[in-house]
Amino acid sequence: MNEFELIAQLLPSLPANDTVVAGAGDDCAVLDLGVPDRLILFKTDAVVEGIHFTRETPPEKVGRKALARCLSDVAAMAGTPTAALVTLALPAAFDPDYVTRVYAGLNALAAQSGVAVVGGETTTNPGGLLLSIALLGMVGRGRQILRRGAQVGDAIFVTGELGGSLAGRHLDFEPRLAEARWLAEHFPIHAMLDLSDGLAGDLRHLLAAGGVGAELLQSALPVSRAAKLRARGHGQPPGTTPKPPALAALTDGEDFELLFTVASPAAVKLLDAWKKAFPHLKLTCIGRIISGEGIRLRTPTGVQSLPARGYEHFQAPA
Amino acid sequence: MNEFELIAQLLPSLPANDTVVAGAGDDCAVLDLGVPDRLILFKTDAVVEGIHFTRETPPEKVGRKALARCLSDVAAMAGTPTAALVTLALPAAFDPDYVTRVYAGLNALAAQSGVAVVGGETTTNPGGLLLSIALLGMVGRGRQILRRGAQVGDAIFVTGELGGSLAGRHLDFEPRLAEARWLAEHFPIHAMLDLSDGLAGDLRHLLAAGGVGAELLQSALPVSRAAKLRARGHGQPPGTTPKPPALAALTDGEDFELLFTVASPAAVKLLDAWKKAFPHLKLTCIGRIISGEGIRLRTPTGVQSLPARGYEHFQAPA
Repeated sequence: MNEFELIAQLLPSLPANDTVVAGAGDDCAVLDLGVPDRLILFKTDAVVEGIHFTRETPPEKVGRKALARCLSDVAAMAGTPTAALVTLALPAAFDPDYVTRVYAGLNALAAQSGVAVVGGETTTNPGGLLLSIALLGMVGRGRQILRRGAQVGDAIFVTGELGGSLAGRHLDFEPRLAEARWLAEHFPIHAMLDLSDGLAGDLRHLLAAGGVGAELLQSALPVSRAAKLRARGHGQPPGTTPKPPALAALTDGEDFELLFTVASPAAVKLLDAWKKAFPHLKLTCIGRIISGEGIRLRTPTGVQSLPARGYEHFQAPA
Repeated sequence: MNEFELIAQLLPSLPANDTVVAGAGDDCAVLDLGVPDRLILFKTDAVVEGIHFTRETPPEKVGRKALARCLSDVAAMAGTPTAALVTLALPAAFDPDYVTRVYAGLNALAAQSGVAVVGGETTTNPGGLLLSIALLGMVGRGRQILRRGAQVGDAIFVTGELGGSLAGRHLDFEPRLAEARWLAEHFPIHAMLDLSDGLAGDLRHLLAAGGVGAELLQSALPVSRAAKLRARGHGQPPGTTPKPPALAALTDGEDFELLFTVASPAAVKLLDAWKKAFPHLKLTCIGRIISGEGIRLRTPTGVQSLPARGYEHFQAPA
């Protein structure tokens, strides 16, 4: 049994109550706590040494990344973040300077995002540093955008550029908070999430939640410069094969861009309005929602199904 | 610099916003998110293998304890818990049965407490298991009981019995949710917290928050049976000296009982009403709030100051 299968098995046994609008399985939990015009968003996310950062990562960037990941989840619901708690689990070799610098990075992003840091705790973690953030946010009642809701015929959009994030961007990305709220306010967004595990994997979550499939246009995928450089062998770890750019855009994780669907007649108007509202951030229509399930990729040589797993064996045409 | 000194240094730099009623430094953060008659409580707490439990602890009790600790903090504000998120960081040797059993214990207590478990995440933690809970709760607007507020002359009360929790009770304790709400509803409770680090240490937090001191009556301390047995050498780790019972009640951690102060004229009425409301749970007046700072202990041989640190060298008279 893998981790996802276990989670699926645990989900039905989780206790609920009448405050729950959306529980486990979306970017944030959505709760109705009685605020007249708003719902509450609730999210936790952890970064772990050796997985999400290394001992060499500047501590300020560790703190920033931990909070930014949670902010990206609030953005994915079209919400506004409000308050955070910080759980810092430290190896036995406790270094006050390291902790101070983690907080400096975290606090700077919190202040910039209007988030209050209202406490937390430090504890000991023999294996290394673990930093978990619990975040509260708010969204206008009925304005939350869930993963489910994609309709056959919808255009599929993605912000920014994809792939190669681990070359550096994963420590510096900007959560798309303002962009997501703007989208929810101006267009009938049907479904949205933030890209953390890679476009193909995350899109699959959105499709499964909506009971639909997708056809992507390979030539439309907005491949990042980092992924293109990597494909040419720059910064490639010795002994590994460079990933073709389209495959990197589909499968590299930690992009933290928005992926969403909108009724197709609104697509052109959306692109025009976006260019005026956010002239410095790319928005790309990468495909459309179709009936069925899974992802089909349209390439210069035809249409092929994208396997659900084992991307490492999938050869995207060049 | 120790951990507490570092936290004190970090506190002033934490960003705030206008939702914050009480930030870091109390049992829970208190937020005003616009619910007309209520405030939101927000808390995280982590348990770590090797510190709060061992590899031999039944997983159900690990899950139960993690949630119970957070519930105790919500109780300490006289609040009602609402929704929890679970962060489970697992050693590389991932055991689905272990995880399922952790959730079983956690879910049972959540259901019993009316708490919805609305998601969370699993991640990898090379050093061992770490389980962090983020908990939301609510409290009537103006009904929250903070750590600060103790007045000179107040009677100091504690629920239950103290000391020796690590003999087993730390895995099975009942968060005092109903008791705390009853107290807040019926009596003018000035200050309250839950005992996690030991009576002397936690009382010191309450005193510092209120700018007052305390005099405790040693003979009044409600010493648990486990602490008394331990004092006679039962279950004493080889090579260590048994702790006198009063010292155990003052300094053993993980009691998770309520410590609170109430205006002295209400003390007798409170004790009477308590016996009717909670006939199976002891409530003890252990002393009173005085001017000054720190803790004085009245013993059969006189009054002495309790040192702020180094209890191991403090010899409570038998």
